[in-house]
Amino acid sequence: MLQCSMLDRVNSELITETAPIQRRMHGERAKCLQRLIRLGLPVPDTVALSVPLVKAIAGGQRPDMKELLEPFGSWPVISVRASPIEAQWGGPGSILNIGMNRANEAYFASILGAEAAAALHLRFIKSFALDVARLDDEIFDIPDLTSERALEAYETEMDEAFPQEIEAQLLDVLKSMSKAWEGTTARLLRMSKGAPEDAGLGLVVQRMAFGLGKGESGAGVIQFVNSDSGDPQEVGRYKRQSQGRDALSANGEAMYLTRDDRGPSLEEASPEAFEKLQDYGAIARKGLREEMQIEFTISGGELHVLDAVRTPRSARAEIAIVTALAQDEVISKPEAVARVNPKSVPELLHQQVAPDAKRDVISVGVAASPGAATGKLVFNAAAAQTAQSQGEACILVRRETSPEDIRGMHAARGILTERGGTTSHAAVIARGLGLPCVAGASDLEIDTKGRKITTRDGRVFSEGDVISLDGTRGEALAGAVPLLEAGIGGTFQTLMDWADEYRDLGVRANADTPADAEVAAMFKAEGIGLCRTEHMFFAEDRLIVLREAIFANEVEDRRAALDRLLPMQREDFCELFEIMAGKPVCLRLFDPPLHEFLPSSRSGIREMAEAMGLSAKAVQHRIENLSEFNPMLGMRGVRLGITVPEIYDMQARAIFEAVVQSQQDGVEAVVPEIMIPLVSAKREVELVKSRIDSVAADVAAETGAHFYYKLGVMVETPRAALRAGDIATHASFLSFGTNDLTQMTYGLSRDDAGRFMSDYVNKGVFVEDPFHALDQDGVGELLKLACARGRQVRSRLTLSVCGEHGGDPDSIAFCRDIGIGYVSCSPYRVPIARLAAAQLAIRDPGDSDLSTGFEDDRDIVPD
Amino acid sequence: MLQCSMLDRVNSELITETAPIQRRMHGERAKCLQRLIRLGLPVPDTVALSVPLVKAIAGGQRPDMKELLEPFGSWPVISVRASPIEAQWGGPGSILNIGMNRANEAYFASILGAEAAAALHLRFIKSFALDVARLDDEIFDIPDLTSERALEAYETEMDEAFPQEIEAQLLDVLKSMSKAWEGTTARLLRMSKGAPEDAGLGLVVQRMAFGLGKGESGAGVIQFVNSDSGDPQEVGRYKRQSQGRDALSANGEAMYLTRDDRGPSLEEASPEAFEKLQDYGAIARKGLREEMQIEFTISGGELHVLDAVRTPRSARAEIAIVTALAQDEVISKPEAVARVNPKSVPELLHQQVAPDAKRDVISVGVAASPGAATGKLVFNAAAAQTAQSQGEACILVRRETSPEDIRGMHAARGILTERGGTTSHAAVIARGLGLPCVAGASDLEIDTKGRKITTRDGRVFSEGDVISLDGTRGEALAGAVPLLEAGIGGTFQTLMDWADEYRDLGVRANADTPADAEVAAMFKAEGIGLCRTEHMFFAEDRLIVLREAIFANEVEDRRAALDRLLPMQREDFCELFEIMAGKPVCLRLFDPPLHEFLPSSRSGIREMAEAMGLSAKAVQHRIENLSEFNPMLGMRGVRLGITVPEIYDMQARAIFEAVVQSQQDGVEAVVPEIMIPLVSAKREVELVKSRIDSVAADVAAETGAHFYYKLGVMVETPRAALRAGDIATHASFLSFGTNDLTQMTYGLSRDDAGRFMSDYVNKGVFVEDPFHALDQDGVGELLKLACARGRQVRSRLTLSVCGEHGGDPDSIAFCRDIGIGYVSCSPYRVPIARLAAAQLAIRDPGDSDLSTGFEDDRDIVPD
Repeated sequence: MLQCSMLDRVNSELITETAPIQRRMHGERAKCLQRLIRLGLPVPDTVALSVPLVKAIAGGQRPDMKELLEPFGSWPVISVRASPIEAQWGGPGSILNIGMNRANEAYFASILGAEAAAALHLRFIKSFALDVARLDDEIFDIPDLTSERALEAYETEMDEAFPQEIEAQLLDVLKSMSKAWEGTTARLLRMSKGAPEDAGLGLVVQRMAFGLGKGESGAGVIQFVNSDSGDPQEVGRYKRQSQGRDALSANGEAMYLTRDDRGPSLEEASPEAFEKLQDYGAIARKGLREEMQIEFTISGGELHVLDAVRTPRSARAEIAIVTALAQDEVISKPEAVARVNPKSVPELLHQQVAPDAKRDVISVGVAASPGAATGKLVFNAAAAQTAQSQGEACILVRRETSPEDIRGMHAARGILTERGGTTSHAAVIARGLGLPCVAGASDLEIDTKGRKITTRDGRVFSEGDVISLDGTRGEALAGAVPLLEAGIGGTFQTLMDWADEYRDLGVRANADTPADAEVAAMFKAEGIGLCRTEHMFFAEDRLIVLREAIFANEVEDRRAALDRLLPMQREDFCELFEIMAGKPVCLRLFDPPLHEFLPSSRSGIREMAEAMGLSAKAVQHRIENLSEFNPMLGMRGVRLGITVPEIYDMQARAIFEAVVQSQQDGVEAVVPEIMIPLVSAKREVELVKSRIDSVAADVAAETGAHFYYKLGVMVETPRAALRAGDIATHASFLSFGTNDLTQMTYGLSRDDAGRFMSDYVNKGVFVEDPFHALDQDGVGELLKLACARGRQVRSRLTLSVCGEHGGDPDSIAFCRDIGIGYVSCSPYRVPIARLAAAQLAIRDPGDSDLSTGFEDDRDIVPD
Repeated sequence: MLQCSMLDRVNSELITETAPIQRRMHGERAKCLQRLIRLGLPVPDTVALSVPLVKAIAGGQRPDMKELLEPFGSWPVISVRASPIEAQWGGPGSILNIGMNRANEAYFASILGAEAAAALHLRFIKSFALDVARLDDEIFDIPDLTSERALEAYETEMDEAFPQEIEAQLLDVLKSMSKAWEGTTARLLRMSKGAPEDAGLGLVVQRMAFGLGKGESGAGVIQFVNSDSGDPQEVGRYKRQSQGRDALSANGEAMYLTRDDRGPSLEEASPEAFEKLQDYGAIARKGLREEMQIEFTISGGELHVLDAVRTPRSARAEIAIVTALAQDEVISKPEAVARVNPKSVPELLHQQVAPDAKRDVISVGVAASPGAATGKLVFNAAAAQTAQSQGEACILVRRETSPEDIRGMHAARGILTERGGTTSHAAVIARGLGLPCVAGASDLEIDTKGRKITTRDGRVFSEGDVISLDGTRGEALAGAVPLLEAGIGGTFQTLMDWADEYRDLGVRANADTPADAEVAAMFKAEGIGLCRTEHMFFAEDRLIVLREAIFANEVEDRRAALDRLLPMQREDFCELFEIMAGKPVCLRLFDPPLHEFLPSSRSGIREMAEAMGLSAKAVQHRIENLSEFNPMLGMRGVRLGITVPEIYDMQARAIFEAVVQSQQDGVEAVVPEIMIPLVSAKREVELVKSRIDSVAADVAAETGAHFYYKLGVMVETPRAALRAGDIATHASFLSFGTNDLTQMTYGLSRDDAGRFMSDYVNKGVFVEDPFHALDQDGVGELLKLACARGRQVRSRLTLSVCGEHGGDPDSIAFCRDIGIGYVSCSPYRVPIARLAAAQLAIRDPGDSDLSTGFEDDRDIVPD
């Protein structure tokens, strides 16, 4: 009874301008066709079957066939197509020419000609046999196949008659298509495209426009922009005496659309149809507010528009299309900004493997930094530098990288590591440098000493062999592959500028070096949110001096060594201030444990021993004494600042002296932000603050200059978040280091998590990798709590997020919700963050004055 | 004016039974003297100077000397003694015989005899010169020193006359003593004993009972119990013709108190005075409700009680004393329980270095496990086992310990390590075993290979040399030292039984092995709150099998290896169930990262390679692959349980089979509690729970037995605390692993914190080491929050704390406040926890029916 009443309520519906067609009920295709009809396009009669009806059919219910077929009059011949709620969820293939049988073959022969009628009939028999009866194609391997022979082959195979009545044919087609939707493979496939588990399917039944027969007859597809570039261009094919999308796979037999030296074109063959198509394209673009691809059929000279779908496009083309739509005032600027998926932006910023390139995949790892590169294999930093000096592109391969490898990473075109995940050292540095990185390629055996890698299938690649990396997919490929260049010019810049008009959340970049800062400035970061000042020490000349400071037994010796680093750091900071030209620069004081700066290899230890005039054993012993069980949780950050205060003293002096020098050099007023890492107690801040204040007073007295600075705290331990109220009494800003905060909240090292994270995400233990998407329930609660507690103590407290999450759209939304002032991410993620933040402001203007009156539904066919 | 009015208000006060003497105003001594007077003891006239008055005198004010001296009539001779608010804060030394001068020397000669009068005068001149005028003792190095010569020497040195008027003398004494109290050294000294920075001093002025002169005259000190054992015994000395405490330092010249073969005694010399002293002792004990030491003087046969103080005592004696007081109904049982400082209990549980032993300290490290031991140096586990098998005591020295050393630690009498702190592996294991441990002795150079240690001053101790450890102080001592035995018999048991009568918080023990469980049972733990089941794998035969399981490439191979461990684990659990005899046993599933079970030394790797039939290189490679950057935050706990589920399967089966076997063996009904470690998300619990439920069902089906079990979660990541509501939906108990929770909340590895923790605590960055005393502000908030969230979901949720903090009195108080049901600590801390918990219930009965009507003030002289 329930089933029946439901069927009553949700019966089939002829699509007219006023019919109650809803996307959520009838699917995107049905809704789109109604809109084309409203726009006056010549769409053949179409009936929409609702999602509940299709579900009922799959469940064995029989719809009212009479009512369903009624709109198609006598001699009906029809097609059935899938109409899922979202077009990208896919669905079963269309079935054409339903209704053809022995009787009407003769009838249509009189109208279209015998050949066309027979072709229509045969085509239907074959597609019914294959797609509905699920027979094998081979049964039609018959010489001189006619519709009659095909029917015989069918009946022999099935041991039953081919249905002749259109009602029986259609019912079988509907059953087959509705059941196909419920198959496991289909379900998994569409879920991978974002469909919910219980996603429904609508169907549309449309009167056939034959495309076969007398007069100009055929079918084709047309779109009005290039799918790669988004530039205006008529693209597509038309084929005479064909149906559906036959033209696209017909190669030489199809016509060009526009006049073309290489062969015949629709423009020449049927200039009035061609002209109409262009009009229809313009109407659809304007009416549907989207760049559409149109499927059309010409029957006896009459043009029919069977369907229109969103023109397929690359990320780059998407940006060109929405920008053009806004410039043509088809959509508003905020809508253009809101339409682009921020996650597609990385594709634009880096070289990519060409979509049609042949891939000889030799290893699959973690897609740790996007982009693609080709180069010769090298196995250590020195070799990478040598290759660079010889102008040769190289790919650096390491089991894992350490700070000692940084110069080699700068010299390489891409990084491949055996260990680590998206937040490993290699990944973080590579993203900062904009290099592709494949991390955790544990299926490779890397022999650093023997300078070769062995793949799982036993192939060996040695130093100098060429490989390619696809960091976007996480693949290593044998040999060189064709690469597409980055697409950050023209329309990209326009769209990003528009985004900035609406954005109400600050976006800064994490930049450790002048090179990073240049990239940050190029991507229009509003400042540096995190400069890891210790990264400046990895240059070889500095490393030696730093090691002397680390090995110093007396405070005076340590000071003497640090005094030699002072002018270098000062120069670094001057450069940063100059590049950022008055934009804020947040300098995090020295953070890592000291042992990270000591050599780990025997040769490194020997070299260090020579440089220091010590025995290798003594050096080894000192290194062992400094080593830690859990370096992440050890003597680093402010703990170092308090127990070995000379380092922070030197850094503070370098900062202030750089400010004074910049003032003298005429750089816009610089107010440095000094950030204390790894704080867990208020008293830590007090102690460091008093020393820094006193260094500032000294520099001011020595130079006679006036300057200001802000002191803040990096909140990266759960305790600092809990005690944010306390801590804010001494801090003018709090910046959440969500990488470390996530590690500590979960008790999970990002470097070690790679081994089981994919397992964990696959089993649904974690919904997502919390190092990618901010864990809103756990880490997020700490953030929320810290924001509230900090603000309670200091209402104008600046709050920011400077972890990797600062470049993740979902995490950015959360940050904005809880009142974060700005996010800071690696330079190459700055455009993503700018775009994501703008979209949030557009959708939910909040306190800002922004009011666009723009519709939220990004779909081309809103209800 | 203010000063004056204050002086008016708080003038000196003659102590009578009814005078308004208050401890907080006049000090503990003044109050005590009033109580002695009330009890009818012959206390000479005494005037109390209040704290504000003494402060005013130090500030230069002159008190009303006339009023002050008025009670002492004509020819007054008086003493001045310190009377701080708490006796243990100390204070300046007493000054006697004030008032002696040329004039009254003659007067007293007529009463006491010339010799006594001259002695009194000389004694006063000398003490005034030394303690008030701060002159050097040497000025009195004069042959045949008389009072007159002493006055000349004084006047020569001072170039001024010695004050003859008592008012001048007393004023100088009062000024001197009041100023001495305000000196920096004195302030720091009393602050180290718990005094607040602004602690005040009262003074008492007392008529001298001379102890010199005609008839039976002298002074002495008596107490009625032995200070070491607390057993009844008259202890003290009496010396004729002496004052104050002279008798105690007089050696051969003093008399015994009771009849004694070795020499004369007070009992014989003045039996009536001796009898009175005994009466006074009994009266004071009953009246002051405390075991008192009495300072007395006999003058011309008349007995005076000058003062009474709390009898000094060891921790062991304290327990005997309070127990006896309660048994004699002088105090109530709850008061007896409440009086003992739980922090003094460890002294009782272990051997200690004798207080008077000579200490040749060769290294100072962290006091990681209390107690003392002497033995021969050994440098590895094998040597320790050899020593044990030969019946020789040994001290195991390692740079740091690892699970491979456990058997060696069992065999040793004490552990000395170069690295680590109070929560290092060595410390945790040593405390569990009740062995003394000195950790982080970084001033030693340990040469494990050469089997010797070199001290900072260059001394070398080699294998076989004898050293001693004082784990209570954190010292290593050269040679053997005399040791005191533990004191956990008799009265200790009585007191602990009383404590259990009042206690309303459960106390369990952390016990990993049957040996631990025996200790836990001995200390009457109410169950096992944490059994780290992996500790059972460190036995050599099991380790080999576990390593096979770790190295297995296929699930089937791993299962086969684990199947061999199953009966061993089952036996372990059966033993635990039997020892605990029906008390609850909480078994934590396998927690540590697998690489902890793999060898780290080359010889270990070679042995393993032989055992597994692999090349050493292959073994090395596998070990490297399993190694982690931050093992604390890596692949351990439930992460292992989910990615390598076979281990938990085996353990669950061992537990259930042990339950069934125990039932068959007639052990009281055992309901095992199974605990999942390192949880950070609810889904982890779901996944493990479903597998354990299915193992339980299998075992029940196979055996036909019925049994119950509880499944709970160890909350040791901040996220688990935050998500406790979620997690409690699948857990019947939550146990807070506060060690790890502290590590993660602070971002601080307990193993690495040793390097700077003392610096941090000294600088006040952390008020206390958060691994000793629970950080109530940070970690505590997470606990509070988790308790509330868990209880909201499941009102009868069992909540407990199983970190080291479970044995810390202050942390226990916090746990009780937030609604924790029981604490679990290492077996040797169980008595501390029982006592501390009882005291909390006594002071704040809360919901319980307990109502003792007992005074909270533990002081002997409440106002």
